[in-house]
Amino acid sequence: MIRILVINPNSTVQMTESVKSVLDDCTPPNVQLEYLTCPPEGPKAIECVSDGVRSAAVLMKYFEDHPPQVDAFLVSCYSDHPLVTTLRETYRKPCTGIMQASILTALSLGRKVSVVTTTKRYEPLLTDGIHAMGISDSVFAGIASTGLAPLELDSKPRAEVDALLARTALRAVNEMGADVICLGCAGMTHMAHVLEKAVGPNIPIIDGTKAGVELLASLVRMNLFTSKQGVYQAVGSD
Amino acid sequence: MIRILVINPNSTVQMTESVKSVLDDCTPPNVQLEYLTCPPEGPKAIECVSDGVRSAAVLMKYFEDHPPQVDAFLVSCYSDHPLVTTLRETYRKPCTGIMQASILTALSLGRKVSVVTTTKRYEPLLTDGIHAMGISDSVFAGIASTGLAPLELDSKPRAEVDALLARTALRAVNEMGADVICLGCAGMTHMAHVLEKAVGPNIPIIDGTKAGVELLASLVRMNLFTSKQGVYQAVGSD
Amino acid sequence: MIRILVINPNSTVQMTESVKSVLDDCTPPNVQLEYLTCPPEGPKAIECVSDGVRSAAVLMKYFEDHPPQVDAFLVSCYSDHPLVTTLRETYRKPCTGIMQASILTALSLGRKVSVVTTTKRYEPLLTDGIHAMGISDSVFAGIASTGLAPLELDSKPRAEVDALLARTALRAVNEMGADVICLGCAGMTHMAHVLEKAVGPNIPIIDGTKAGVELLASLVRMNLFTSKQGVYQAVGSD
Amino acid sequence: MIRILVINPNSTVQMTESVKSVLDDCTPPNVQLEYLTCPPEGPKAIECVSDGVRSAAVLMKYFEDHPPQVDAFLVSCYSDHPLVTTLRETYRKPCTGIMQASILTALSLGRKVSVVTTTKRYEPLLTDGIHAMGISDSVFAGIASTGLAPLELDSKPRAEVDALLARTALRAVNEMGADVICLGCAGMTHMAHVLEKAVGPNIPIIDGTKAGVELLASLVRMNLFTSKQGVYQAVGSD
Amino acid sequence: MIRILVINPNSTVQMTESVKSVLDDCTPPNVQLEYLTCPPEGPKAIECVSDGVRSAAVLMKYFEDHPPQVDAFLVSCYSDHPLVTTLRETYRKPCTGIMQASILTALSLGRKVSVVTTTKRYEPLLTDGIHAMGISDSVFAGIASTGLAPLELDSKPRAEVDALLARTALRAVNEMGADVICLGCAGMTHMAHVLEKAVGPNIPIIDGTKAGVELLASLVRMNLFTSKQGVYQAVGSD
Amino acid sequence: MIRILVINPNSTVQMTESVKSVLDDCTPPNVQLEYLTCPPEGPKAIECVSDGVRSAAVLMKYFEDHPPQVDAFLVSCYSDHPLVTTLRETYRKPCTGIMQASILTALSLGRKVSVVTTTKRYEPLLTDGIHAMGISDSVFAGIASTGLAPLELDSKPRAEVDALLARTALRAVNEMGADVICLGCAGMTHMAHVLEKAVGPNIPIIDGTKAGVELLASLVRMNLFTSKQGVYQAVGSD
Repeated sequence: MIRILVINPNSTVQMTESVKSVLDDCTPPNVQLEYLTCPPEGPKAIECVSDGVRSAAVLMKYFEDHPPQVDAFLVSCYSDHPLVTTLRETYRKPCTGIMQASILTALSLGRKVSVVTTTKRYEPLLTDGIHAMGISDSVFAGIASTGLAPLELDSKPRAEVDALLARTALRAVNEMGADVICLGCAGMTHMAHVLEKAVGPNIPIIDGTKAGVELLASLVRMNLFTSKQGVYQAVGSD
Repeated sequence: MIRILVINPNSTVQMTESVKSVLDDCTPPNVQLEYLTCPPEGPKAIECVSDGVRSAAVLMKYFEDHPPQVDAFLVSCYSDHPLVTTLRETYRKPCTGIMQASILTALSLGRKVSVVTTTKRYEPLLTDGIHAMGISDSVFAGIASTGLAPLELDSKPRAEVDALLARTALRAVNEMGADVICLGCAGMTHMAHVLEKAVGPNIPIIDGTKAGVELLASLVRMNLFTSKQGVYQAVGSD
Repeated sequence: MIRILVINPNSTVQMTESVKSVLDDCTPPNVQLEYLTCPPEGPKAIECVSDGVRSAAVLMKYFEDHPPQVDAFLVSCYSDHPLVTTLRETYRKPCTGIMQASILTALSLGRKVSVVTTTKRYEPLLTDGIHAMGISDSVFAGIASTGLAPLELDSKPRAEVDALLARTALRAVNEMGADVICLGCAGMTHMAHVLEKAVGPNIPIIDGTKAGVELLASLVRMNLFTSKQGVYQAVGSD
Repeated sequence: MIRILVINPNSTVQMTESVKSVLDDCTPPNVQLEYLTCPPEGPKAIECVSDGVRSAAVLMKYFEDHPPQVDAFLVSCYSDHPLVTTLRETYRKPCTGIMQASILTALSLGRKVSVVTTTKRYEPLLTDGIHAMGISDSVFAGIASTGLAPLELDSKPRAEVDALLARTALRAVNEMGADVICLGCAGMTHMAHVLEKAVGPNIPIIDGTKAGVELLASLVRMNLFTSKQGVYQAVGSD
Repeated sequence: MIRILVINPNSTVQMTESVKSVLDDCTPPNVQLEYLTCPPEGPKAIECVSDGVRSAAVLMKYFEDHPPQVDAFLVSCYSDHPLVTTLRETYRKPCTGIMQASILTALSLGRKVSVVTTTKRYEPLLTDGIHAMGISDSVFAGIASTGLAPLELDSKPRAEVDALLARTALRAVNEMGADVICLGCAGMTHMAHVLEKAVGPNIPIIDGTKAGVELLASLVRMNLFTSKQGVYQAVGSD
Repeated sequence: MIRILVINPNSTVQMTESVKSVLDDCTPPNVQLEYLTCPPEGPKAIECVSDGVRSAAVLMKYFEDHPPQVDAFLVSCYSDHPLVTTLRETYRKPCTGIMQASILTALSLGRKVSVVTTTKRYEPLLTDGIHAMGISDSVFAGIASTGLAPLELDSKPRAEVDALLARTALRAVNEMGADVICLGCAGMTHMAHVLEKAVGPNIPIIDGTKAGVELLASLVRMNLFTSKQGVYQAVGSD
């Protein structure tokens, strides 16, 4: 049995529940998912780099006190979350974030990927994160923000949110030239059908939480691991 | 049951057998692998672009005459093989090549990927192919060739081949700065242990045939498909 | 006398005739042009990568059976046609395609080149082809498609086609910042005057068929040849 | 008759004579070459940017006083010489430099071009110039300097110069991965055979003075001209 | 006392006066500014590359005849002015241009810099200059031109100029995604408040003349100097 | 009086003292420096990303409890330290890190900058950080590591450290093509003379702590501030 820890790096339990409700329905065979919400001293949502840093520090401390007993880690925050790197430095078990997992998956399905995300601030944040992954603009159509904050995805009226999601997805396809779309927030996990309905059956919509679980399960099955040379080498072992 | 067709785009049955012997031992759960060797009018090995073109044309004809009944396609040639694109244009079922699958996997494990491959000619060919995938040099350490032709991997003395593979893998790590390595030929599939022994336990070695099967199985499980908009849209439907 | 073979890699004789009617009027001194239309088993038009692959395979076979007796080859298809590479692998005589020839010419006349082409699908296809040539976005203003299929250039009403060509050329200049334009289809060869009239006397319009003939004649006169080292080395000689 | 003015932007008449002796032997049909040496207040050789600026200013003044009566201009200095841009701003007649002409030609013959040049200082100068042309590193193998100053090509003992040229050309091919080489100084024009002998029959050696004449003759024959929109628009006409 | 020579490379004294009136009010402590206007044989404004070349040649001659006795040089023309490079080749004292100084400063304040400049022609000219500085598009939002010629900034009615400046600044922020703006002409120095008022208190507006003086004063205080190796090595000392 | 807070983001007081001893000797006029060492729950040295994250979290908490009363912040750690971004998100007062300050300064003095740093791990870490700043490889010669950990700079025998620093600096110049060098660790601040002696008087050596103080003093004098739009906008204000 492959044990994967799905980490919600913000302290909003509802968001973990939301992801769990989707992932439990499509867990790959021989995989067992466990869920962790960031302790309450962490941020409620990750809306900027400061949130990501605070979140990572709280969780690193948590793991020191509660050594994880799993085969792989999924950081369920659609951002260039520093916890992905810190977990790779600390452990040999594979780790990825839902942003990276979704983009890697997208590259096998289309030629130009775009991400539909939350706040406008995430446009440069995710653009930088995708470039930092080593992805060039030849396959990246840009980030399309809805203008909604992460927690507003559930707090605002359903119809308003759905309309924004649909409109933004269409903008990514029609104006930005995307032929694949990634859901740009863990909080969108249960809303994939809204984007699918808007863009039609020719455009795949990728959910990074699902893609992340699949990728990690694959890595474990192939006995692969985080490289312990170079930037992810063990902490204090240079 | 997820049915994946593993296509050897050269006409050397031994190479298909070689890949089969490895993949059958680690087929993911609920996956059934089928194997196809390029008909004999195709090239014996893919050593240049002309080989790839001829190979793709022969196989496209084959598929017209024998419509495939599978859920996904894996092109088992470590190159920027045109068959990957032609299959994506022709079908909705996902398709990837072992080069793309291995590189996408590598990006989740390390910071700088290199490929240990066959002939020196493959250095620029694979470099171009990896750039064409949208991967930038910030995460790509270059291609390291052994100087062996694909068929020589099995025809030359074992000790000579192993020594070349080991030396080349070490060069990729020590001189080119790689922290992850990909096997750069389907014909190396049963030789992964040679590289693993040479580079030690800190460097993951990725077999693109395995990574390709895992990736495709994941895509099918997630109900994802090749985008039918943009460059992969249906042939004749612009 | 320099003998240049102008190859129409699709099987539509009318398109070869069209190119011939233009080139015969401006053949450079001491140059003799010969024309070849792809045998009928090849595609009628090149509208996607599958067409290009099939086209190249058919012609490679043709050349095996009918060894060419010329000094240079021009592939008269505005795309990253694989036949250019396969001819360079197979022969020492220089070979270029009308896309490459037009872009290289454009770089000596302006700062930002754009291509007016046929279908929307060609936007990413040509963008990738131009990048693959080694041209960076600092001198490339993008691809502007008319939405016409190659064969529609002649089959649709003249006025409609001219209006589309004019409008697209103006978009390339006014919205995309181009200061040089290339005709993006061999089938536009006899329509250059339409674009010239639209954009005015300050913007050069380049016909890749003419530019290709001129470039090849120059190469032959300078005793230059396709490099037989690296990616174009003789097939089977690594 | 197509009249091309070959401009030596330094004031060393011997170098003009040297280029003339080579070009007069291979003037394309229907082309008449005229030669101009920079007036004596200009620099003896172009060894740095200051030389290029001074050279361009002297020649711009010269052309104001002696309006040229030609169809095209070739700036015969292997550098990113500002005179190319100033002539393009001032006139509609096409203009190129031997650096640009040689690189554009090289891209039709191989995959990785290198330049064998004079001083070490030219390594970054030409690298920047080639990038500024819009050429990306995917097709550029770097600059290989001999360490000779331009005038030392003729003033130093023949054997010593030939040995340096040969050694540098081999370094470009064997260590830097070039499959095409450009002569990196107008003063090397009559030494092409030395490099050809060193690198063998598989590597084309391009003389930018010849390539420049050929390119300009082609442009004139095609009725092409410097774009008068964007960066080369008429001076004072924005 | 640190002596900085502020060079106006065009011959319009009014523009030097304009810059002087602003800089004299905010001269850093222990700094003494001197001003030089290009001799009258130089261009009245720098509107194209030819102007820049002529300007640099005139000033290089001036400095030969009048050796400067200062600690640093500021070239006060918002462009990739060749005088910056020629001064760096000729002297060890640090030298910068207001374009470079403003961009380097901007990178410490925001993520995406744009320049509000004069003529449309400056859009590609400054884009190339910024790329040539080694700045990538990840931090560069593009150039926004007002359409005004440099001398029109003062000659046209105040209200018309202010409206254009304001509108262009807003375009840079709202449409081009800039979060920092640079004044793109020495002649805008006394108009910073117009842009500040338009974009509001969240967007820093950088004046390259001020930034240049500050940068040079810092370099002198740190005993830093232009590298005399590589491209800026002493003229004639390779 | 301009008040600049120099933050040592590791908890080793000796390193703060070291920086203080150098900076107090060359404080710019009208500038008052204050020093802060990371509280003891922070890491002793910053040797990997996990250290940087922990360090930033501790200091963000510290600043919440002890609101800073300064005009600018300098993060004195040679890395892409997240505290730079979190301070920019939180405050309007300008903030920079010594890595960014040194690189921006270097670009005004030479054409190719290299950094002499501590551990081999810092080679990819700093390369990524410099790219993330928006600096392209055209002006970046790479990172040269000594192999020393930050604290070993002072703990190992003086002669051994000096020899390593000298050797590494020479490698950067002679093998990597640098013409400017930056000290790659705050702990090297009092060792600049060692590198200067090794590379000679033609190569400027930049100390990022000095460059950072100068840059921040300049920004404050010019009334510039961190952009509060885009990625640095106020936390929770999207």
